[in-house]
Amino acid sequence: MNRKEFRDLAAPDEARDAIDSLSLEGGIERVPLEDARGRVLVARLDAELDVPGFDRASLDGYALRAKDTFGADEADPARLDVVGEVHAGTEPDVELEAGQAAEISTGAVMPDGADAMVPVERTDTDADGDEVLIRTAVAPGDNVMFAGADVAAGERALGPGTEITPRDIGLLSALGVDEVPVRARPRVGIVSTGDELVRPGEDLASERGEIYDVNSYTIAAGVEDAGGDPVLYPHAGDEQDEMERILREAADECDLVLSSGSTSASAVDVIYRVIEEQGELLLHGVSIKPGKPMLIGRLNDSAYVGLPGYPVSAMMVFRTFVAPAIREAAGLPEPAAATVTGRLARQERYAEGRHRLMPVGLVTDSDGETLVYPVDKGSGATTSLADADGLVEVGPETDYLEEGESVTVRLFSPNVRPPALLGVGEDDPTLNRLLDGLENPRYLSVGTRPGLRRLREGVPDVAVAAGPLDRDLDATELGRWEREWGLVVRAGNPAEIDGLADLIDRDLRFVNRTTDSGLRSSLDAAIGDLADDRGTTRRELTEAIDGYELGLRAHESPARKVIDGDADVGLGLRETADRLDLGFVPVGEQPVRVLANPNRTDKAGVRDLEDALSDVSAERR
Amino acid sequence: MNRKEFRDLAAPDEARDAIDSLSLEGGIERVPLEDARGRVLVARLDAELDVPGFDRASLDGYALRAKDTFGADEADPARLDVVGEVHAGTEPDVELEAGQAAEISTGAVMPDGADAMVPVERTDTDADGDEVLIRTAVAPGDNVMFAGADVAAGERALGPGTEITPRDIGLLSALGVDEVPVRARPRVGIVSTGDELVRPGEDLASERGEIYDVNSYTIAAGVEDAGGDPVLYPHAGDEQDEMERILREAADECDLVLSSGSTSASAVDVIYRVIEEQGELLLHGVSIKPGKPMLIGRLNDSAYVGLPGYPVSAMMVFRTFVAPAIREAAGLPEPAAATVTGRLARQERYAEGRHRLMPVGLVTDSDGETLVYPVDKGSGATTSLADADGLVEVGPETDYLEEGESVTVRLFSPNVRPPALLGVGEDDPTLNRLLDGLENPRYLSVGTRPGLRRLREGVPDVAVAAGPLDRDLDATELGRWEREWGLVVRAGNPAEIDGLADLIDRDLRFVNRTTDSGLRSSLDAAIGDLADDRGTTRRELTEAIDGYELGLRAHESPARKVIDGDADVGLGLRETADRLDLGFVPVGEQPVRVLANPNRTDKAGVRDLEDALSDVSAERR
Repeated sequence: MNRKEFRDLAAPDEARDAIDSLSLEGGIERVPLEDARGRVLVARLDAELDVPGFDRASLDGYALRAKDTFGADEADPARLDVVGEVHAGTEPDVELEAGQAAEISTGAVMPDGADAMVPVERTDTDADGDEVLIRTAVAPGDNVMFAGADVAAGERALGPGTEITPRDIGLLSALGVDEVPVRARPRVGIVSTGDELVRPGEDLASERGEIYDVNSYTIAAGVEDAGGDPVLYPHAGDEQDEMERILREAADECDLVLSSGSTSASAVDVIYRVIEEQGELLLHGVSIKPGKPMLIGRLNDSAYVGLPGYPVSAMMVFRTFVAPAIREAAGLPEPAAATVTGRLARQERYAEGRHRLMPVGLVTDSDGETLVYPVDKGSGATTSLADADGLVEVGPETDYLEEGESVTVRLFSPNVRPPALLGVGEDDPTLNRLLDGLENPRYLSVGTRPGLRRLREGVPDVAVAAGPLDRDLDATELGRWEREWGLVVRAGNPAEIDGLADLIDRDLRFVNRTTDSGLRSSLDAAIGDLADDRGTTRRELTEAIDGYELGLRAHESPARKVIDGDADVGLGLRETADRLDLGFVPVGEQPVRVLANPNRTDKAGVRDLEDALSDVSAERR
Repeated sequence: MNRKEFRDLAAPDEARDAIDSLSLEGGIERVPLEDARGRVLVARLDAELDVPGFDRASLDGYALRAKDTFGADEADPARLDVVGEVHAGTEPDVELEAGQAAEISTGAVMPDGADAMVPVERTDTDADGDEVLIRTAVAPGDNVMFAGADVAAGERALGPGTEITPRDIGLLSALGVDEVPVRARPRVGIVSTGDELVRPGEDLASERGEIYDVNSYTIAAGVEDAGGDPVLYPHAGDEQDEMERILREAADECDLVLSSGSTSASAVDVIYRVIEEQGELLLHGVSIKPGKPMLIGRLNDSAYVGLPGYPVSAMMVFRTFVAPAIREAAGLPEPAAATVTGRLARQERYAEGRHRLMPVGLVTDSDGETLVYPVDKGSGATTSLADADGLVEVGPETDYLEEGESVTVRLFSPNVRPPALLGVGEDDPTLNRLLDGLENPRYLSVGTRPGLRRLREGVPDVAVAAGPLDRDLDATELGRWEREWGLVVRAGNPAEIDGLADLIDRDLRFVNRTTDSGLRSSLDAAIGDLADDRGTTRRELTEAIDGYELGLRAHESPARKVIDGDADVGLGLRETADRLDLGFVPVGEQPVRVLANPNRTDKAGVRDLEDALSDVSAERR
């Protein structure tokens, strides 16, 4: 295999400059008014008419000459002849003379001869409506909106660069404008490469190392967020001719082409060749983490950025370098800076000398202060971003950040709301239903043991622990329930598995859970009891189990191995077996405890969980 | 005419409760992943597979048994046999034994027998590639992402109520989800009534009192902003049968029907009848300003809100009562509160005892402090909102707010950026071009005299004054230019008008500008000169001019009266005449001065304007 390595990494600012040197703009288009919201005006719009186009009655009442009301009041009203009516949307057919009035409705044209109006509430009419008594004096112009008072012909209505709000649409409507010239959204082609990628919704062959294509839809959503128009190209695989054809097509049709996973060896070869033939390579590799493998160049008239293949890296490079350029080309301002300052929950070491973008989560501690904890499941993990609230930027010269240090978090968007409750621990179906009833919870199913460790470290509000607790904890139990665990087997239990002993004594393929799981603790305790019964060691028994060492992370995974025929028996819950229509051989019950950080029991999210828990307990009683 | 009056106005909270009692929800729909951004999940999504679905190499390098590397370092590398290659997207065809390694690419499936991998940078191969030297020791699991490490089967992936971000789309993609169940956007029918309304883009007959329909598109944009799906119904006019038919149709098809202008007499009659027959009226009239005439009720299964006809009132009622209900029904959280605190620029009196929503503009003064000034061109003026940045709420018990009092402004959206420059004064084409070159200016063309008055009051950054200045001003002149003014006449000047004297001596219909305008000052000065020449008074001359009293606000309006044939001559600028292809009879030149508040000359927006002005002066030299 041919591999290109990165030698001279560019500084982040150089990457920014390189992208700025490209033109991403999509030109001008005209859109109907109903589609104008959020678009950006490309030229000044001047009023071509007066709004209103005539002197207009502001209320229902009587049009008259102000002079005729001078001195009138409740005690001594002025008496005028009613000589006509004017309705909104009709042309007045009267002209007033001294001593005359015309009934007029809101929005109607003031008749000639009238210079003011009096609202109906300040008048009385006689029985036949021929005369009106005016119980107040008005000045010329009172209760009249003059032609052009809102907007006058020739006036500058909206300037170039205006991002059109509903309020601007009101102004444009008033001017009779039904189409506006706006900046075209930059067209952004998205090309994903890699033989292993499968589009969501299609079948996946994990045994061949296939994974779903994460970047295409994610980047497309990011392009829309930034005001661009994403175009998804068919997945190119690693077949070089096909990839080259798609790249050239995208460059023809778009203002910007983004490829992802394009830093794999064969992809880089193709991109280098295409860029050499019809473009220019400006930069390869940026000193940033995550995100190092980045390409910037030109493909004919189109800009080109090659994003890393790992979802977190791709999204970080996109957010940091590409999204601002798309917004700029779309004429949109940088979104309102949404930042939060908090205390770092644990020390972070980092000594690679690259500018670092660290995804973090937020949690409010007992003082109402914000704790900031790094979320790092690796660049390949989509949950590194989905479980985070924002980023902390760390300069290349910083080797570590101390626990408790104050850091500034750039939220992913101004709409990000930190979770009302942060929980960690065991995966459990009852818990999942509980969480559904809460407002904005976050739960990280890391397993019982890591959950308890994190609770001790003081970051989460609660930990959920299943099985026996092996040591004293400084925690407040909010509630608990029992769950039945055992062996998940094929539907109908065709292998007639009776219990744990069969795993040891018979030739069955078993799938275990990791030692992080509370289920595993209960299993190990049960095997221990069996060993005592047989007068042997637990070790001897576990060594006799085929697959004992195969510990999977998630509570459903062993059951799914049974469904797939990869195993005869899996460790699991009755509830899982029932839901997946599998057989179940019960072994025992174990408690699931919800344990709160004792300083956070007054936090609203924790109290809500406690309330929900008491409902669960009540149900089960 | 029959008029309904409002007697017992409901408190704002009662109106809120009435709307809350209605159901606006649109149900559930399934959308493809590419359309899921910003939508709201209606149910929990659990992972149905492990991500990744296999143990995965995190880097390019060699898969091996960790045990074989123990003790290896740069000085004493481990030497292993290379027995195969595994590429991403292919199934491994090797199984490793002790002392063996397989070349592996990023993302590929770890072959059986391997429990760790070493990146290529820490290895060397011999010439024929049969052996690899491993220059580092690794532990089991190093550089491997285990199956389910990102998301494990059965894990709670996203909870109900999640507003889907690009990051969530990444997670959903990874899970292979290509369609998600989301809350349907509430369907909101918009019915506008009133014989005087014309849709933008159509012809307007101002003489009949027609105006463009502002509310339909504005409210539709507001509905979209709030997460609803607006449906515009054909304009109903005031014809009762047609209006009734459209109302019933909208109620059938939508979750919420909004009508505007529906508080006019005949419209209210129809609405009362329709509601009586197939619904329920909950509330009529709210103690809020603007917005009093509001109806809330039910039409069969649909909610109904009648909005006032005036654009500002309609939008305020919509924002205050309706938009939050739409967001709630759409499952969207209230947008991040964006507020600004500032000092009120002038005293505001108000004693109507209604809760008040006061549109305000913002300007930064010399200290960097925010000044808040009321924008009140009346409820009928679209610019009352388009020229404002947010709202100040004033309780019914407050009669006045003092100048300098601290007030909190709710911005119309978190994206509102207060203008970088606030200018007021004369309307001028050169000025309009100048403003186009500035970043985010706001200019209120109130005329020269009101502009100077406001500058003295200390609110705007600059005032633009045309014509002679009649008194000393404490202001810094940033620049000036000259403009040619005179009489705008029909193309080719068919009436052979020579100059001002013709207005007096001949039978010509003239259109003037208001006394606010600097053009009017220059005209009056010129007529004064002419009166001196003739040994008479200015008054005598102006009384001889047919239309001298007809003063229009905007600089183009007189010219447009000439185009329309309503006048023979209008007061105006050569530039206006040229642009509208009209004839022009020059009378004089007048200076246009840009005058800055002397405390604000260092403000960035003012300096930018000064720079732009020096370019104009240079051009003209």
